[in-house]
Amino acid sequence: MQEEIQKHNLASFTQVSEAFDFLANKLTKNGLDVGNILSQLSGFQVAIPSWALGAGGTRFGRYGIGGEPANLEDKIQDVGLIHALTGCAGAISLHIPWDIPSDTQAIKELAAANGLVFDAVNSNTFQDQADQKLSYKFGSLSNVNKDIRDLAIDHNKQVIDIGNALGSKSITVWLADGSNFPGQSNFRNALDFTARSLQEIYQYMPTDWSMFIEYKPYEPHFYHTVIQDWGTSFMLANACGDRAYTLVDLGHHLPNTNIENIVSTLIYQGKLGGFHFNDSKYGDDDLTVGSIKPYQLFLIFNELVWGLDNNTKNNPAPAWMIDASHNLKDPIEDLIQSLDAILIAFAQALIIDQNALQAAQMNHDVSLAQEILQDAYRTDVRPLIQKMRASKNVAIDPLKAYRSMEIRNKLIAKRGVNSRATGL
Amino acid sequence: MQEEIQKHNLASFTQVSEAFDFLANKLTKNGLDVGNILSQLSGFQVAIPSWALGAGGTRFGRYGIGGEPANLEDKIQDVGLIHALTGCAGAISLHIPWDIPSDTQAIKELAAANGLVFDAVNSNTFQDQADQKLSYKFGSLSNVNKDIRDLAIDHNKQVIDIGNALGSKSITVWLADGSNFPGQSNFRNALDFTARSLQEIYQYMPTDWSMFIEYKPYEPHFYHTVIQDWGTSFMLANACGDRAYTLVDLGHHLPNTNIENIVSTLIYQGKLGGFHFNDSKYGDDDLTVGSIKPYQLFLIFNELVWGLDNNTKNNPAPAWMIDASHNLKDPIEDLIQSLDAILIAFAQALIIDQNALQAAQMNHDVSLAQEILQDAYRTDVRPLIQKMRASKNVAIDPLKAYRSMEIRNKLIAKRGVNSRATGL
Amino acid sequence: MQEEIQKHNLASFTQVSEAFDFLANKLTKNGLDVGNILSQLSGFQVAIPSWALGAGGTRFGRYGIGGEPANLEDKIQDVGLIHALTGCAGAISLHIPWDIPSDTQAIKELAAANGLVFDAVNSNTFQDQADQKLSYKFGSLSNVNKDIRDLAIDHNKQVIDIGNALGSKSITVWLADGSNFPGQSNFRNALDFTARSLQEIYQYMPTDWSMFIEYKPYEPHFYHTVIQDWGTSFMLANACGDRAYTLVDLGHHLPNTNIENIVSTLIYQGKLGGFHFNDSKYGDDDLTVGSIKPYQLFLIFNELVWGLDNNTKNNPAPAWMIDASHNLKDPIEDLIQSLDAILIAFAQALIIDQNALQAAQMNHDVSLAQEILQDAYRTDVRPLIQKMRASKNVAIDPLKAYRSMEIRNKLIAKRGVNSRATGL
Amino acid sequence: MQEEIQKHNLASFTQVSEAFDFLANKLTKNGLDVGNILSQLSGFQVAIPSWALGAGGTRFGRYGIGGEPANLEDKIQDVGLIHALTGCAGAISLHIPWDIPSDTQAIKELAAANGLVFDAVNSNTFQDQADQKLSYKFGSLSNVNKDIRDLAIDHNKQVIDIGNALGSKSITVWLADGSNFPGQSNFRNALDFTARSLQEIYQYMPTDWSMFIEYKPYEPHFYHTVIQDWGTSFMLANACGDRAYTLVDLGHHLPNTNIENIVSTLIYQGKLGGFHFNDSKYGDDDLTVGSIKPYQLFLIFNELVWGLDNNTKNNPAPAWMIDASHNLKDPIEDLIQSLDAILIAFAQALIIDQNALQAAQMNHDVSLAQEILQDAYRTDVRPLIQKMRASKNVAIDPLKAYRSMEIRNKLIAKRGVNSRATGL
Repeated sequence: MQEEIQKHNLASFTQVSEAFDFLANKLTKNGLDVGNILSQLSGFQVAIPSWALGAGGTRFGRYGIGGEPANLEDKIQDVGLIHALTGCAGAISLHIPWDIPSDTQAIKELAAANGLVFDAVNSNTFQDQADQKLSYKFGSLSNVNKDIRDLAIDHNKQVIDIGNALGSKSITVWLADGSNFPGQSNFRNALDFTARSLQEIYQYMPTDWSMFIEYKPYEPHFYHTVIQDWGTSFMLANACGDRAYTLVDLGHHLPNTNIENIVSTLIYQGKLGGFHFNDSKYGDDDLTVGSIKPYQLFLIFNELVWGLDNNTKNNPAPAWMIDASHNLKDPIEDLIQSLDAILIAFAQALIIDQNALQAAQMNHDVSLAQEILQDAYRTDVRPLIQKMRASKNVAIDPLKAYRSMEIRNKLIAKRGVNSRATGL
Repeated sequence: MQEEIQKHNLASFTQVSEAFDFLANKLTKNGLDVGNILSQLSGFQVAIPSWALGAGGTRFGRYGIGGEPANLEDKIQDVGLIHALTGCAGAISLHIPWDIPSDTQAIKELAAANGLVFDAVNSNTFQDQADQKLSYKFGSLSNVNKDIRDLAIDHNKQVIDIGNALGSKSITVWLADGSNFPGQSNFRNALDFTARSLQEIYQYMPTDWSMFIEYKPYEPHFYHTVIQDWGTSFMLANACGDRAYTLVDLGHHLPNTNIENIVSTLIYQGKLGGFHFNDSKYGDDDLTVGSIKPYQLFLIFNELVWGLDNNTKNNPAPAWMIDASHNLKDPIEDLIQSLDAILIAFAQALIIDQNALQAAQMNHDVSLAQEILQDAYRTDVRPLIQKMRASKNVAIDPLKAYRSMEIRNKLIAKRGVNSRATGL
Repeated sequence: MQEEIQKHNLASFTQVSEAFDFLANKLTKNGLDVGNILSQLSGFQVAIPSWALGAGGTRFGRYGIGGEPANLEDKIQDVGLIHALTGCAGAISLHIPWDIPSDTQAIKELAAANGLVFDAVNSNTFQDQADQKLSYKFGSLSNVNKDIRDLAIDHNKQVIDIGNALGSKSITVWLADGSNFPGQSNFRNALDFTARSLQEIYQYMPTDWSMFIEYKPYEPHFYHTVIQDWGTSFMLANACGDRAYTLVDLGHHLPNTNIENIVSTLIYQGKLGGFHFNDSKYGDDDLTVGSIKPYQLFLIFNELVWGLDNNTKNNPAPAWMIDASHNLKDPIEDLIQSLDAILIAFAQALIIDQNALQAAQMNHDVSLAQEILQDAYRTDVRPLIQKMRASKNVAIDPLKAYRSMEIRNKLIAKRGVNSRATGL
Repeated sequence: MQEEIQKHNLASFTQVSEAFDFLANKLTKNGLDVGNILSQLSGFQVAIPSWALGAGGTRFGRYGIGGEPANLEDKIQDVGLIHALTGCAGAISLHIPWDIPSDTQAIKELAAANGLVFDAVNSNTFQDQADQKLSYKFGSLSNVNKDIRDLAIDHNKQVIDIGNALGSKSITVWLADGSNFPGQSNFRNALDFTARSLQEIYQYMPTDWSMFIEYKPYEPHFYHTVIQDWGTSFMLANACGDRAYTLVDLGHHLPNTNIENIVSTLIYQGKLGGFHFNDSKYGDDDLTVGSIKPYQLFLIFNELVWGLDNNTKNNPAPAWMIDASHNLKDPIEDLIQSLDAILIAFAQALIIDQNALQAAQMNHDVSLAQEILQDAYRTDVRPLIQKMRASKNVAIDPLKAYRSMEIRNKLIAKRGVNSRATGL
C-alpha cells in the first residue's frame, strides 16, 4: 500500500510543491508561521466510529454497498486503510454491543498494527438486544421503572469495562430517551432520573476517564427529548462532576441555531468535551462534513482554534469524531471527503489574522472584521494540506488514490457483495 | 361485536343525550342546523392505509407490537374492525408491492364483508424489491437512466391494473426521488424526466381514474427532492391533465409553513386531490392526527368546509387518508385517536358562523373575525360526534370499547406475539 | 363603569349559570373541586406592560390607532380599564426611560386608584436616547468598551431606583446585544462582559428584589445574540446568585422548540422567574396569546400548574406578563383577547386528572396519557371563567362589554386621533 | 476619482498579476477559457436600489450613519460612486413614492453622467403616504374593498409611467398583503383579488415591459401572506401573461428551503425574472450577500450559469439587484462587500467543469460530482476578479480604495451628520 501511495504522490508532487510555495510565500508575507501551521495540520487526528464503515439507511430502506465489514476486525482494517491514506484518522470509536471484542488482546494488537488507538466508547440504550429481559421502548436511563434504569446503567458500566480493557479513556452517552406525545412523559421526573443514572455511571468510571453527554432536539422521539439541548447537557454534566462534559454533534440542533456560539460558551465554561462532525440541511441528516454548510464549519473551527489557544478554563483536547451516515456513497470515500473538509476548515481557521481581528472588534469595525474572516476562508488552503500529506508519506489526494487502487473492488472480492456491517 | 358495542354504548347513552341536547340547543339558538351537521359527520369517511396496521419505526430501530397483521387479509380485517367501531373508516388504501392480492375476487369480497371500499392505490419506487433487476438507489421516475425510468413507469402501470381490478379509481404517486449532495443531480433534468414519466403513467390510467401527486421537502433525500413543494406538484399535475391533482400530506412541509393557505390555493385552482392526515412537531413525524397542532387542523378544516361548499372550480371530493406511523402505540388505538381528532376538527369547522365571519372580514374587524373562529374551536363538539355514533350503532367511545373488548389480546392470541406486518 | 358592566352581565347571567352548572356538575362527578378551581382562576393576575397600549409596528411601518395614551398617566388608566373589565390585569410593568414618572407619589396613587401594583421594571439598552453620550449601536452590557458597559450598568441601576420608589420588587433585563456578521464580535468576551455587568447590577438590587434574565435567539441582531437561549440565561443567573432567574418569552425560540420542556427544566432547578405571553407562527411575531398555538399554551400551563404544585426547589411565583405588539388591532381589545386565552389555558390545565395521568405514565400507557390531556383541553371551560367573572363583578364577556361601551371612541374624543404612545 | 483609483491599483498591480497568472495557468490546463471568464465577469452588472444608501433599521430602532443621501440626486451619486469603484453596479432601481423625480430629464442626465441605467421600478403599497385617502392597513391589491384595490392599482400604473419616462423596462411588485390572525382574511378571495389587480397592472404596461412578482412567506404579516411562495407567484405570473415573471429574493424563504432548486425550476419554465441578493441566518435578515451562506450562493450561481447557458425556454436575462439593509455598516461599504461576494460566486460557478459534472451525474458517481463542485468552490478566484477590475480601470480592491479616499468623511462634510435617506 505504502508503495502505491508513493506512486500516486509522485505524479502530482511538482504541482503540489509549486502551489504550496506560492501560497506559503503569500502567507509568510502576511506574518504567518507556515511551518507551525503544517505541524498543527499534521497532528490533527479524527476518530472514525466503527458503525460508519457500512451503508447507512433511512426508515424507508437501505441500499447495501458491497464489501461491507462484517465484524470488528474488518472495521478496524477499514479505519486503518483510511488512516494509511489520509494520516489523520488514527483512532476508532467503538459502539457496544455492536462491537464487543471476543479477544481483547488480539483486537488491541490489530488496532496498533493499523496505527489506531481507541477513542471514546459508545453505549446503546436506544435499541433492545435480542435477549434483553426488559425493553427500552419507553426509555432507559430516564425510565420511570427502576429495573429498566438499572439495566441501562449496568449496560453503560459494561461499556466502560470493555473500553477500559482496550485503552479508551472516555464514554459517550447519547441518550435517545424522550416521548412522542404530550402526556406520555413527566418531563421533570424523566430529567431527574436521568441525572441520577448519569451520576451513577460517572461514579463508576476510572478516575482518568471522562464522560461526554450528547444532546439532540428530536429523533428518534418526536415530541420531547430528555436531553434536548446543550443547556440540559451542561446542567447534567455539572451535576456529575469535573470530568463530565458536553458533546456537540453538528446535526443535533434546531433550524438556524448558531452552533459556533454554543461551542464558544462551552469552552468559556471549560465544558466542551467532544465533537461529532457531519453536515445537514434539514435535520440530523448525517451528510458528509462540509458538504452543505462549509462556512459554518469554518466559523466553528475559528472558535475552536481561538478558544483552545486561549484555554482559560482547562478544557481537555476535544474528542473529534466523524458521525455521518453513508446512504448513497461508498463509506470509505465519504469519510475521506469528510476528513478533507475538516482539514480545510481547520487550515482556514489557522490562517486567520487574529490580531487584526481583535483590533477590528475593539474598533467596532464590522466591515473589516468580516473581511478578515472572509479573506482566510476564501484562500485556497489545499496546498497546505497536500504539502503536509506529502511530508507524511500519505496520499496527497486520498480519494483519487483510493480509487486508483480499486480498493472497493478488492473488498468486495474478499468479503462478498452482500456482507453487511453490524449495527442498525 | 355489534352486541358488545351496544353494551358499551348503553352505559353512556343517557350522559351523551344530555350533553348533546345541551349543545344542540345552544347551536340551534345560534342559527345552526344541527341535523345537517350530524348528517355531514355521519357521511365522513377516511381511508386507512394498509401499511398502518403494524408497528412503525425510525432509522434507529423498531419495537414490534404483538398480533400484527401478516398479510392483506389480516390488514383488511383490522381496518374492518376500526370501521365497525368508528363508522368512519370505510376504505382501505393499498400499497404495491406490499399488498398484491393473490386472489382478487376473494379480497374484494372480504373487503365488502367488512364494509370497505378500495381507495387510492399507492406505488413504491423508493425501495428495491428482492428480485429487482435495476436499482432505484439513484432515482426512479426521475432517473437519468431510461431503463430505470421505464421500470418505474411499468411498476406504476401495474399498480393501476391491480387497483382497477379491485375497484379503485385513483393512484397516489409519492416520488421519493432526489439527491443527498450538491452536484449529484441535475435538478432540471430530473424534473423534466419526472414530468414525462408522470405523463406516461397518466395516459395509461382508465378515463375515470385520477392521479394524486404528493410533494415533500426532504427525507429520504437530504439535499434536494424532485417534487419538493405544492408548486412543483401543481405544475406537474397541470402538465399531466385535468385528472391529475396535488395531494397534501400534513407532515410534508418546511417549518412554519401556512398549510391552510396552500389548501385554499389548491381549491381555488380546482387541483386539491387528496389529503394525508397526521401530525408533527419537527419533520414528517407521522404522529397521531391532532396530537400536536389541533388548531392548525381546525384551520385546515375551515378551508376545506368553506372551500368545498364554494367549489367554483370543480374540485373532486378529496381522498382522505390517515398516514401516520405507530412507533409506540397500538396502531389500532392510534388510528382511532386520529379519527376522533379528525371528526372533532370537522365538527368545529361545521359550526363556524360563516356569515358573521364574512361580515367581519368585509369590515376589517380583525378581533371579531378571530373571536368567531375561536368560539367554534373552543366549543366542546364531542357530544355531536357521540350522538352521531350512537345513531349509527357504532361505539360512542371507540377507544374505550376497543379496550374493554380486549381486542389486542385476542389478535395476539390468534396471530402470535411476533407476527410482523409486511412493509418497511 | 361598574354600572355598565353590571348591565352587560345581566343580559347573559342566566345563560352563564346554566352552562356553568352543567359543566360544574360534570367536573364534580369526575372528582374535581370546582370551588377551588374558581378560586385559583380568580386569583390569577397578569401584568400589562406600559408599552402595549399603543399601536405596534414592523420595520416596514406602523399604522396608528386613535386615542393612544400619550403619557404614563394615560397608560395607567388604560390598564386600569382592562383590569376593571377583566379582573385579572392588576399590575403594570414599566419601561424605562419611556415611562419615568415625574411625580412618583402621584403615580403610585393613580395606580392604586386603578387597583394596580407595579410589577417588574424593564431597562432599555437597545436604543440610544436623544442626549446619550455613548452609543449602544455595538452593544451595551456586553460591549468591549468599558465606558459603554458602565453607561448601561448605570442605566439599569437607575431603573432599579425608579422601580423601588414605586414598589416594584424585580427588574427584567432583556439584553438585545449581539452581532450581525461573523467576526464582528468575540463571543466569549461578549458573554464574559455580560456576566460581569449583570453581577454588578445584581449586587445593586435591594435584598428583597429579583432579577429576571430574558433570552432570545435573534432580532434585533441577525447573526449572534449574547443571551441566545435558556441555557445561557440559566448560566448567567447562576453566576449572579439566588435571586436571579430566567425569564421565558414564548416568542423567543427557534422553530419547533419544545418550550414546555424548558419550563419544566427551569422549575426543576428553581430558576423560573417570569413569563412573557404572546403567540407566533414564524419568529417573535408578538401576536395575541393563544391565537396561533393554543395547544402549546395549554401544555405550558400543564407544566406550570403541576410544577408549582410540586415546587420542590422554591421557585418564586412567576411574574406573568403579556408581551405582544398590536399592529392591526385596538391594543385594549387585543389584550382582552390575550387575557381570555390565558385564563382558558389555565382552566384547562386545572381540570387535568393528574392522578390518572401519573398512573398512565407509570404504566407507559401512551394512548391513555394522551387521552387524559386531550380530554381536559377539549372541554369548553369558558363557563368557569364566566362564572368567576360574574362573581367578581367584572365583565362576563369583557370584549363585548368594551365594545358596547364604545370606549375607544371615547378615548379618541379625549386624546385625539393622532395621539401616539411613547416608545418605539 | 479615476486618478485616485489608478494610484490605488498601482500598489497591488504586480501582486495581482502574479496571482492571476498562477491561477490562469492552472485553469487553462484544466481546459477553461480564461479570457471568456474575464469577459463574463466584466459584463456582469447588478442594480443598486435607491433605498439601500441610507442606514436600515429594525422595529426596535435605527442607528443613523452620517452623510446619508437626502434626495434622489444624492442617491444617484452614491450609486455612481460604487459603480466607479467596482465597475459592476451600473444600474439603479427606484422606489416610488420615495424617489419620484421632480425633473425627469435632469435625473436621466445625472444617471447617464454616472454611467447608470434605470433598472426595474418598485411600487409601494405596504405603507400609507401622508395624504392618502384610503389606508393599506388591511391590504392593497388584495383588499376586499374595491376602492382600496383601485387606489393600489393606480399607484402601480403611476410607477410604470414614472419608470417609462426614465427608461426602465420593468416593474417589481412586492405585495406585502396578508393577515396576522386566523379568520382575518379569506385566503381565496384575497388571492383572487390579487390575480385580478395584477392583471390590470400588467395590461397597463408598455408592450416592451416586464413584470416581476415577488414572494415572501411572512413579514410584515405574521400569519398569512397572499403571495407566500414561488408557486403562488408562478401561478399569478402565468395568469398575467408571457411578460410576467417570478422574482426570487434570497431572504424570502422558510427555514431550510432549497432555493437553488426553485431557481432551476423557474428557469425550466422560462419564468425566472429577477433576483434580489442578500443573506440571512434566521429570516429576511437582509445581511450582506455571501456573509452567512456563501456555498448556497455558489450553488445558486451554478444553476444560473448552467441554466442560462441552456436556456431552452427563453428566460430573459434576469434583473439582478442587491436588496440588503445596512443596520450597522456604512451602506456603501456593505454594498461593495456584497458585489465582491456576488462576483466570487459567479466566478466559482464559471470554472465548474460542466462536462465532467454531467458525466458523473450520468454515472451516478455521487462522490465525484461533489468533488467537482467543491473543487470550483474551494478555488481562490479573487485573482480573476482583480485582473478584470484592473483591466477595466476600476479599483482592484474597492473597499480599500473607498477607505483610503475617506469618502464617507467627505460625504458627512457635505451632507451633514444627521442627513437621513428618505424611505422607511
